Amino acid sequence: MSDVAHEPAPEMVTLALTLAYDGAGFSGFARQQGEVRTVQAELEAALATLVGALVDTVCAGRTDAGVHAQGQVVSCDIPTSALGRADDLAHLVRSLNALTPPDIVVREARIVAEGWSARFDTVAREYRYLIANTTEPPLFTASYAWHVVSPLDLATMREAATRLVGEHDFASFCVAASADSLHEQGLSTCREIISIEIDTVCELGEPLIAVTVVGNAFLHSMVRTIVGTLVEVGRGKRPPEWVQEVLDARNRAAAGPCAPAHGLTFVRTRER
Amino acid sequence: MSDVAHEPAPEMVTLALTLAYDGAGFSGFARQQGEVRTVQAELEAALATLVGALVDTVCAGRTDAGVHAQGQVVSCDIPTSALGRADDLAHLVRSLNALTPPDIVVREARIVAEGWSARFDTVAREYRYLIANTTEPPLFTASYAWHVVSPLDLATMREAATRLVGEHDFASFCVAASADSLHEQGLSTCREIISIEIDTVCELGEPLIAVTVVGNAFLHSMVRTIVGTLVEVGRGKRPPEWVQEVLDARNRAAAGPCAPAHGLTFVRTRER
Repeated sequence: MSDVAHEPAPEMVTLALTLAYDGAGFSGFARQQGEVRTVQAELEAALATLVGALVDTVCAGRTDAGVHAQGQVVSCDIPTSALGRADDLAHLVRSLNALTPPDIVVREARIVAEGWSARFDTVAREYRYLIANTTEPPLFTASYAWHVVSPLDLATMREAATRLVGEHDFASFCVAASADSLHEQGLSTCREIISIEIDTVCELGEPLIAVTVVGNAFLHSMVRTIVGTLVEVGRGKRPPEWVQEVLDARNRAAAGPCAPAHGLTFVRTRER
Repeated sequence: MSDVAHEPAPEMVTLALTLAYDGAGFSGFARQQGEVRTVQAELEAALATLVGALVDTVCAGRTDAGVHAQGQVVSCDIPTSALGRADDLAHLVRSLNALTPPDIVVREARIVAEGWSARFDTVAREYRYLIANTTEPPLFTASYAWHVVSPLDLATMREAATRLVGEHDFASFCVAASADSLHEQGLSTCREIISIEIDTVCELGEPLIAVTVVGNAFLHSMVRTIVGTLVEVGRGKRPPEWVQEVLDARNRAAAGPCAPAHGLTFVRTRER
């Protein structure tokens, strides 16, 4: 006797999508309960329309509300049949962009190995934080830079930053509830910062300070709290050595303020 | 017998102001009749509040509706008494910025020689036009770059551009009614282009083409018509030599389309 006939499971293919978005219009990347607008919900809605089935996505870095991305990476499985001609990923990108809102742009689609995960197969993340350290506010970069009027001393900021490079317990640089939750689950708040560079740059004709942070992974609000802490040093309110005390405290209250979200951009990832 | 007593004319000082503005919210620089919002009207209203008298301004370059400026220069005479301490021009800048809307930022104020004119004492103007030559539209620079999907050949664009450098009659690159009006007044449509550079640049993480045009002075819509014409060449619709025919025609109908205003920024001036 033959088995009861089943629909065969559709053949699936794993995609990696690279996307840019303007964070201003989103309550962050991650899908949430309720009526809030998120990048993940918008992207998954576009994918569902495209492939005719629900699609789950996994991202390389869950950006907070207001944080931008130039090179967020997302992985998902879709039915091979939905791909069309396998070599025409450019067509898939165009179709997706026709379905996503204008503040999300899919830059690239790649086929990756089955089971590849944007979360677990990304070994480093690069973020860039822009500061407009000028008396008058920036004009063309106002949506992408934190306006700090007090003159910042880049030399002391760089000296402070060197103390953060390497593997450390960054609990002081993590939203307290999030650190507590990790600790309760027996998870670590140790992360490795690979580099922090502080440069003067020019974007759209406006002079800015760029703080570029590369790490293996980041805790909740970690980059923004690092920037807020380095700015305390740059203003001269704290000496560079203070950053060591902040690290050692393993307590969010020890660090500087969290820098505003709109100055932060998730730039790119490095993969295994 | 003494003369009838007169109020002595107030002692005046000539100022040069450098300003940036986002052109999106303005019907151009020049004051107009009616309810339209212009940079000049906003600036003069702020100056009038600051000095307690009407102030006339003269600019280095009358930008069109939608065109941005990083370094527009404006001259005006104000009563010396309104200046406060003559060495505190930073205070004047702060006061002006408190009175101007957020899409105009006064970057600098200088005292210049009596009778100095931003129009007549500026010997060169630099404009930059940005093009996003990518399949998908730009995200962070969408307000400052023209999205051209067809791949552009920079080599042929550069070759075409060399034909425009030097002193020429640019009537073909001027709004027709404006060229006619100049000719009726016995004025010339000859101008000198000092340089045109076409480079690939990166702004806010997005790859762009920048067309930088420096000239002694420009006709109405001249930079945008130059860019629209060079883009026809870059697309391959016309050979580089066509630009010579356009110049020789002295007729607006011979040139390419006028590129959109939002891609253009008035960058800086060079003074006598």
